[in-house]
Amino acid sequence: MSTKTPKVYDQVIEQIKNKIKNGELKKGDRLPSEREMSESLGVSRASVREALRALEVIGLVESRQGAGNYIRTNFDNSLFEPLSVMFMLQESSIEEMHDLRETLELQCARLSAKNIENNELELLTAILDRMYMAENEEESLELDIKFHYLIAKTSRNVLLINVLEVISQLMDEFIKKSRMQILHRGNTRENLLEIHENLVRALKCRDEAKAYRAMEEHFGLIRKAYGYEK
Amino acid sequence: MSTKTPKVYDQVIEQIKNKIKNGELKKGDRLPSEREMSESLGVSRASVREALRALEVIGLVESRQGAGNYIRTNFDNSLFEPLSVMFMLQESSIEEMHDLRETLELQCARLSAKNIENNELELLTAILDRMYMAENEEESLELDIKFHYLIAKTSRNVLLINVLEVISQLMDEFIKKSRMQILHRGNTRENLLEIHENLVRALKCRDEAKAYRAMEEHFGLIRKAYGYEK
Repeated sequence: MSTKTPKVYDQVIEQIKNKIKNGELKKGDRLPSEREMSESLGVSRASVREALRALEVIGLVESRQGAGNYIRTNFDNSLFEPLSVMFMLQESSIEEMHDLRETLELQCARLSAKNIENNELELLTAILDRMYMAENEEESLELDIKFHYLIAKTSRNVLLINVLEVISQLMDEFIKKSRMQILHRGNTRENLLEIHENLVRALKCRDEAKAYRAMEEHFGLIRKAYGYEK
Repeated sequence: MSTKTPKVYDQVIEQIKNKIKNGELKKGDRLPSEREMSESLGVSRASVREALRALEVIGLVESRQGAGNYIRTNFDNSLFEPLSVMFMLQESSIEEMHDLRETLELQCARLSAKNIENNELELLTAILDRMYMAENEEESLELDIKFHYLIAKTSRNVLLINVLEVISQLMDEFIKKSRMQILHRGNTRENLLEIHENLVRALKCRDEAKAYRAMEEHFGLIRKAYGYEK
């Protein structure tokens, strides 16, 4: 086992992190100039630049030509890259990913029942209607993703949403679309539509337990289709 | 909203990431030399060095004096740093963190009931015994953390464990110990011990539903103690 030896640039990163922690730096804020940081920490400007570049690489900081360095306002998942690479290095199985995703989506269903707003319910119903009319598997799949994304969003828990996004992206890379499409054929397709219908109904009644159970049914079907039942 | 403009070093990072994805590079492996990477991608060695430095900063790569660059074998949470910084930037509420933590721990309890081994059950029982005898709040707290960590570990889902670790660390930074200690006093302490006892019993019976419910009770108590009941 190797442990990381602290480097000079770590001090710079630590300082920026602390300023974020104590609220001194927020999204979109300008960082102190390289000169200021180098003076306040007593480190070389090269070390400051190294740290800034690394923060830029992971998508936390952006440098604007001639205007200095800023905390990014949107993260485009760039910060998740390291996490998803680590997931890959740990050779996590698709079952492990699936378990985590299920855990998070069940909770999303519950929270959504509590927090979804009327216009969002309308949007969800519209997506469901289009799912019934979808003419090919591509379209079904796309609508399905939208449906689940909207439920996640209406959970109103940004942390949950973010972690779910990482794991979903990761799974999409592993699961070939063809496997997902199993779900959008024949019998399974009908069952799936029914389950989505139940889910919408539960959300409309603001019934957390019912929403949770509908999502549970949904994942039961997925497990069955993928052949790794609990 | 700003989007990240691709830079030359991004190509280098992309290449390394792809090699991890397709299994060519694993934990502990040596990376191609700077010269090789620079030649194979047709980019300057400075760009290669920039990318490597960034990967070193986030703790994915370590450079060994005179021996080249390696994929790290243990991550010491270093890869989680960016994630936890992002959580902070999003100004997630303690309730949001709590919700996510609860979601994950409930699933851990369920999976642990399925996967825990006998020697781990013995260890868990020993921790519980020591919790009963703990003489101060510091000790209670420490044992409590060990107890939950062991249950998480025995879920055998590394993804779940990792995400739970990030969120736990983050919460520890936010929740002052004093608040956690509410739980280790008087009545609440007794209730908590009883719940932990129930949890161990459920795990011993390999009863997933019972383990889940015991953990649910546990979080109900925490919510009550913290004053943010559902």
